[in-house]
Amino acid sequence: MDIIKQSDLVKPSANAKRQAAASETRLDPFSGQWSIFAPQRTERPDEFVEHRPTIKTDVACPFCRGNESETPPAVWSKHIPETARLFSADDGPADYEDWSVRVVPNKFPAVDSIDETSTAPSTRPSALFQSNAVTGGHEVIVESPRHFHSLTELDIAEIDLIFQAYRDRIRHYRNVAGVQYVSVFKNVGRTAGASLSHSHSQLIATDRIPQPVASVVENMGRHRANTGCCLRCDVVRAERKAKERVVACDETVIATCPFASQLPMLVRVTTLKHQACFEDLGDRELESVSRMVYRVITWLEQLRPGTAYNYCLHTKPPGIVDPSDSFHWYIDIFPRMSQVAGFEWGSGCMINPILPEEAAASLRKCSASRNPRRF
Amino acid sequence: MDIIKQSDLVKPSANAKRQAAASETRLDPFSGQWSIFAPQRTERPDEFVEHRPTIKTDVACPFCRGNESETPPAVWSKHIPETARLFSADDGPADYEDWSVRVVPNKFPAVDSIDETSTAPSTRPSALFQSNAVTGGHEVIVESPRHFHSLTELDIAEIDLIFQAYRDRIRHYRNVAGVQYVSVFKNVGRTAGASLSHSHSQLIATDRIPQPVASVVENMGRHRANTGCCLRCDVVRAERKAKERVVACDETVIATCPFASQLPMLVRVTTLKHQACFEDLGDRELESVSRMVYRVITWLEQLRPGTAYNYCLHTKPPGIVDPSDSFHWYIDIFPRMSQVAGFEWGSGCMINPILPEEAAASLRKCSASRNPRRF
Repeated sequence: MDIIKQSDLVKPSANAKRQAAASETRLDPFSGQWSIFAPQRTERPDEFVEHRPTIKTDVACPFCRGNESETPPAVWSKHIPETARLFSADDGPADYEDWSVRVVPNKFPAVDSIDETSTAPSTRPSALFQSNAVTGGHEVIVESPRHFHSLTELDIAEIDLIFQAYRDRIRHYRNVAGVQYVSVFKNVGRTAGASLSHSHSQLIATDRIPQPVASVVENMGRHRANTGCCLRCDVVRAERKAKERVVACDETVIATCPFASQLPMLVRVTTLKHQACFEDLGDRELESVSRMVYRVITWLEQLRPGTAYNYCLHTKPPGIVDPSDSFHWYIDIFPRMSQVAGFEWGSGCMINPILPEEAAASLRKCSASRNPRRF
Repeated sequence: MDIIKQSDLVKPSANAKRQAAASETRLDPFSGQWSIFAPQRTERPDEFVEHRPTIKTDVACPFCRGNESETPPAVWSKHIPETARLFSADDGPADYEDWSVRVVPNKFPAVDSIDETSTAPSTRPSALFQSNAVTGGHEVIVESPRHFHSLTELDIAEIDLIFQAYRDRIRHYRNVAGVQYVSVFKNVGRTAGASLSHSHSQLIATDRIPQPVASVVENMGRHRANTGCCLRCDVVRAERKAKERVVACDETVIATCPFASQLPMLVRVTTLKHQACFEDLGDRELESVSRMVYRVITWLEQLRPGTAYNYCLHTKPPGIVDPSDSFHWYIDIFPRMSQVAGFEWGSGCMINPILPEEAAASLRKCSASRNPRRF
């Protein structure tokens, strides 16, 4: 069993240590939340030795090729003929040729399908105990017929296809009557909330917009009304000027460690060009995005081998009417380095021990020292 | 190394399974947040086998008696002479007689002391990159001179003393000019965010009120203005009438699983009598509270032996002017049974696989089947 070495954690530089006596709090202009930055917290002693979860070997993976009957029938699937070359003739059932990326309804959905007649408890209108049925959709994007654990083990053609699947399935849900919100996300490793190790991501669509998402939309709308500009475009411009939090940038896409990041080493990817909806990206832009996400995860894994991580894709919620075009899509990618503890749960205010400037510098160093596999 | 058995998880009853096709969303009237309840999620396969973190044996525990010099000097300490009897004469240095519970400044504080001249970065007033120094206090409540891991291993006199320490230290900070908010919390086990295993809790005081806390205060104020009643008193009355979410109740204190609980098996403890501030509780009320917290943790540990858990104590923030007396203190106690995954991080909307009614029923069963150690 692997032991997760605490030394894998990114340590603050001498510069950060010099500032170690000082905590600061920073405002996220998107969410309106303040987070506390306390670099001195990385210096505290740690008595625990963590052990990586092991993976049961006696469980047949429902996402591997040959086990397609273990999941509901696919609602989307595409095949890259070239991946067939990766298998030898006696590599198992031949239906691997049928799909490279496959989207199936989640067998254990968090929300019921919006198409079905709801069997949910009837709405309770009580002021104290208010409840409603929640419908929408919950799908799994199976990212490869092969049993890989991280996106970075996949073929670049597969990665492109995964992002095409996201785009197509969001487009689908945006046209389903009643759907107000669509979230695409990925959990890799137990610490990140995964229950299966085969590389996959998920989509949840709901008939209501979560209040924290509505707050972001509201704050972006206010900025547009006050300044005439998109808040994300303004922040991207300011980050490119400041440089210190930029991880990587190409002609289309930028990756930064946000100024008021709630979580250590969180990286935000978005397009330089204003774009409300991820699902409206063209093929070439989509390719740039998928390559940037791949590169960022490669660097995070280089800093912290085998790390658990999540990413979340935020597109303009279909239920939002946004005539001033104030929303701008983004993806947040974050390794799971720390636990949300009592203070954070109680106050809703996160304590982040790693300054985004330090995080970005570490990631830039990786980017300079090693070329990811295929780029 | 112990393996955390997934079978320790509370499984939904047949009744919950019959409703398994239906997800519902419930509104927390205090926070204004909706959570999704999806009991069917407990049925999904789980490929991971988790392993309890081990504890380094070569690290001298800074909280054990004899190691007092490893921490800053105590700001509060009290001694119960009887606990001395628990040690034999050759049990180590004799200064164990000096304290039973001890409060010390955190050596690695999340916020700087409000008394010190701040060395924090100067305020940045930029609209996009706003930051401020954050000051207040960060203290550790060392709960015993002996190396125990959970509150439930302690002597009842020590537990009472811990709650006295909370009361005294909150009273202290409420009189410190500039302090707006005080949080008392406990992290037990690595999954709950602890870095040391010796039983302890913490207090963080800050010069600003976190926005999610301000929202709760606002919602409670609105309810008072609209109805003339305290929202928590109203909910407590309704819970006692409904019965299904009540875990335990005595003449002073009630423990319930909140209707719209964000986390599985979360238990909320509060006083039946309206009381804004925890620190204004009298000695006998305080004893009832500490005993109820002890009992709840005993039951949670009975359901899930060795569980990591947190609790958070919420008292009226000192910075809040509340002439209508709308706030009412409470403690939330919650085992760490699930990871916050991508959807929850992205949307801010929690998915809870265990209905509070099921959680309360399981805990009531423990309460009936076994009398905690000393009550």
